Amino acid sequence: MSDGRDVRACLGVCDDAADDPQHRCHPQHVGLRRVGARPGGDRTRGRAGRLLQASGRVVGGVSVSIDQRLVELGIELPTTPAPAGAYVPAVVSGNLVFTAGQLPFVGGVLPATGKVGEGDGLVDPAEAKAFAATAALNALAAIEAELGSLDRVTRVVKVNGFVASDPSFVGQPGVINGASEFLHDVFGEIGVHARAAVGVAVLPLDSPVEVELVVEFE
Amino acid sequence: MSDGRDVRACLGVCDDAADDPQHRCHPQHVGLRRVGARPGGDRTRGRAGRLLQASGRVVGGVSVSIDQRLVELGIELPTTPAPAGAYVPAVVSGNLVFTAGQLPFVGGVLPATGKVGEGDGLVDPAEAKAFAATAALNALAAIEAELGSLDRVTRVVKVNGFVASDPSFVGQPGVINGASEFLHDVFGEIGVHARAAVGVAVLPLDSPVEVELVVEFE
Amino acid sequence: MSDGRDVRACLGVCDDAADDPQHRCHPQHVGLRRVGARPGGDRTRGRAGRLLQASGRVVGGVSVSIDQRLVELGIELPTTPAPAGAYVPAVVSGNLVFTAGQLPFVGGVLPATGKVGEGDGLVDPAEAKAFAATAALNALAAIEAELGSLDRVTRVVKVNGFVASDPSFVGQPGVINGASEFLHDVFGEIGVHARAAVGVAVLPLDSPVEVELVVEFE
Repeated sequence: MSDGRDVRACLGVCDDAADDPQHRCHPQHVGLRRVGARPGGDRTRGRAGRLLQASGRVVGGVSVSIDQRLVELGIELPTTPAPAGAYVPAVVSGNLVFTAGQLPFVGGVLPATGKVGEGDGLVDPAEAKAFAATAALNALAAIEAELGSLDRVTRVVKVNGFVASDPSFVGQPGVINGASEFLHDVFGEIGVHARAAVGVAVLPLDSPVEVELVVEFE
Repeated sequence: MSDGRDVRACLGVCDDAADDPQHRCHPQHVGLRRVGARPGGDRTRGRAGRLLQASGRVVGGVSVSIDQRLVELGIELPTTPAPAGAYVPAVVSGNLVFTAGQLPFVGGVLPATGKVGEGDGLVDPAEAKAFAATAALNALAAIEAELGSLDRVTRVVKVNGFVASDPSFVGQPGVINGASEFLHDVFGEIGVHARAAVGVAVLPLDSPVEVELVVEFE
Repeated sequence: MSDGRDVRACLGVCDDAADDPQHRCHPQHVGLRRVGARPGGDRTRGRAGRLLQASGRVVGGVSVSIDQRLVELGIELPTTPAPAGAYVPAVVSGNLVFTAGQLPFVGGVLPATGKVGEGDGLVDPAEAKAFAATAALNALAAIEAELGSLDRVTRVVKVNGFVASDPSFVGQPGVINGASEFLHDVFGEIGVHARAAVGVAVLPLDSPVEVELVVEFE
């Protein structure tokens, strides 16, 4: 039931599609590019590196742990940000983990607030894309806290991405690609997911983005 | 745990409720009317035809395949629209399929853009209702691509419908009924689902609606 | 995989956090206070009462049924509000119940309509918090109708809360805490969930809030 092989086979075909929400190609041809979740991340790897990542948790026949992958990517899992209300960051049911909606907290602080769009006083879509990756990183921290290790994740099933949007801004897919590409970078094939992206009026604490995950584990 | 029998028994009771979000009746009395997802669809069948549909996948003791049902309805499954970002149209986990949020693409093009509401420059709610059916059709195409056949679907579990809404427009239920009624037409009893409908500021590519499904299969 | 013990251990630590969405503490320290879902509810119990509640379905070594708990809380399950469209209030799949998005109907009527925010013509956030509890109560009624008894619930897995928001209002977490605290009051530890809260442009029938649940049962 995995579509991972098809995805891998097509990587690169639509390599420039990710930032252009109007660009569409065959469903299995997903445009995946790395988003540095941290300034220390290696942003310079080319297509070869991406293809290697795309092969998921098995590289050259050797299983690579997600912990090792995070080190390779220069990413450190943060402490799970505290919920903004009376709930917990993630709950396990059966072999699924449902995370809370995660904001792009870095060290307990939102790096920006406001609506995303083009124009004065709005959060730049490219910045918002990076925030979506950070929110996904925070979701991974919540999952790791539940499961003990991200190596137990067998599939990222669903991503829901909310973008606080100026009413004229219609590039939500490009913004939430920040989360999607990050998850692919971390998990490879099994990081590719179904997704909904919507533009909402306003988000908690005036965050520009909010991201939640459903992942399967064993 | 199925409420299917009750639903069937009540069909017709609230038959005119679907377009009127203010109209409410007993929860099991759902008002279901056919929405032609395609111009070629037969829009002229009366209540008898609807009751027949409502009996689900067993008609006169003979099992009817969903493929046959689609032919009856004059509906052809489209090619799954390409995702608008770095994700896939549907993911299977356990015996559930989670679809991505689907836009009402027809042949790769959105038939309309903008916010839904009453007034100049807004998308008419009746049109938006048809677009919701089209988005649900696209979700079925994504599910069929994962499962090989829609006959494996045992229940439509959940529908989430997002309506890009003028702030004064509160008829989201009537719009998303386009998806709900379509799913009932296709699947009969097992197509009746739990649902959330919300009015959002703006949707990807300025789509008027976005619909996602969770379905159970065997 | 339960974090229930930690949550109980920490109750009170962040006891005043619930109404202040900016207040954050350790993720396991959830601030939980009682929201009376009904005027008849006992709003005067102090911290000791809350800690007792927090111990969930086992009090003094004696299992307490949810029905008994509801009586203690002065809460009567309403008739499930009729869906606002062509769907059903809840669907069971596997050992999960997915509810429809629930509005804060009381006796079939919305107690208020409009957007939530600070200022003239807006719904007061404290009122909206009470409406979120009512919407969660309606979701419980839908679950009880499916399962026969709320005693079968083993965990509230996920809460999604939508707040029709004035664009300047960023206190969605405080509003949806109305649902979260209510669920904790009813279920104790197993009522603590993952959650997303977002601010949307407008909700069905101009409702100020909409809440949906995913619960696990046996």
